[in-house]
Amino acid sequence: MELPLKLQNVVDQFTKLPGVGGKTALRQSMMLTKWNARELQFFASSLNELSTLKQCAECLILCDHEFCTLCTNVKRQEKKLLCVVENMTDCLAIENSGQFHGLYHVLGGVLNPLLGIGPDELNIQKLVNRVAEKFTEVILAINPSVEGDATCSYIKELLPTSIDVRRIGFGVPIGGHLEYLDAMTISKAFENSRSM
Amino acid sequence: MELPLKLQNVVDQFTKLPGVGGKTALRQSMMLTKWNARELQFFASSLNELSTLKQCAECLILCDHEFCTLCTNVKRQEKKLLCVVENMTDCLAIENSGQFHGLYHVLGGVLNPLLGIGPDELNIQKLVNRVAEKFTEVILAINPSVEGDATCSYIKELLPTSIDVRRIGFGVPIGGHLEYLDAMTISKAFENSRSM
Repeated sequence: MELPLKLQNVVDQFTKLPGVGGKTALRQSMMLTKWNARELQFFASSLNELSTLKQCAECLILCDHEFCTLCTNVKRQEKKLLCVVENMTDCLAIENSGQFHGLYHVLGGVLNPLLGIGPDELNIQKLVNRVAEKFTEVILAINPSVEGDATCSYIKELLPTSIDVRRIGFGVPIGGHLEYLDAMTISKAFENSRSM
Repeated sequence: MELPLKLQNVVDQFTKLPGVGGKTALRQSMMLTKWNARELQFFASSLNELSTLKQCAECLILCDHEFCTLCTNVKRQEKKLLCVVENMTDCLAIENSGQFHGLYHVLGGVLNPLLGIGPDELNIQKLVNRVAEKFTEVILAINPSVEGDATCSYIKELLPTSIDVRRIGFGVPIGGHLEYLDAMTISKAFENSRSM
């Protein structure tokens, strides 16, 4: 049985989202058929508004205005400490941990020659300029992978030697079990062992 | 860290959908920030279109025009066989099985005095009229529950005795294991045992 076109259109849009298959999309769309016109209108206009979302002119974090709330925070500027992340979601995870009080820089990915992502596709030149102007310390919070490692080395080379460039620590996650961890993580954990 | 308002609005809408928590909503919304304005516009307008979705004047199935494609199908009308379901999703499941070739009637739920759902809240009077006009056989494909059972008895009482009123069979689902089934299902399976 074919779904009515108007319903099928919504189902099709939902299936384009990550983690949404045909059944979930149908269940969500059927739920939406029970929303009234005003509620649907609000959902629709909030989607349209997304295309006017800005990226902070400094760090590339998504924001409503020209600069994000972090870059305009004087207390954070004073730390002269910059954390480089791949994507805004990494930045949200770090903010949730409450452990970092400096500013961020979103690269937009990592170097990946096979996918045609070189330095020009990433936000790297802007990083070099920002660091030269305002920062004394850089923490690379790039995920561990061959491409991530290469990206970190590349950035380290570009930055002046006077800058303290560090990378976040790798090892056993809290709550993790050695039994279930991969060999790379365990070998990193041994490398990063600390005297106690 | 607060999300930009435009992003937060979209996240809020997604969390209203069934099975979507905060993390999933954020992941889906972040994906949407990568869509271009035209794609977002299409998603938005398809949502708006949902409010103009019609219900078939005969069976209450959602459809684009006044009558659904099933009710206007002459071959299906000829069977004079009506299947009563709670919701349109039940009807989709039955159509997927390919086992039924008559017409449908969507009740919109089951009788539930505790939730204030009486006969007037359901599409029952219309069912009685339709059956009197056009059908000789009715299959109740109402889910098994106390309320479902009561609804079936109520409908049976309302229909003329000349109509053959049946209810779908209950028992062990194909691929099911007795070991994991509840006592009610097993007792129904014994009740519905068939000579072989």
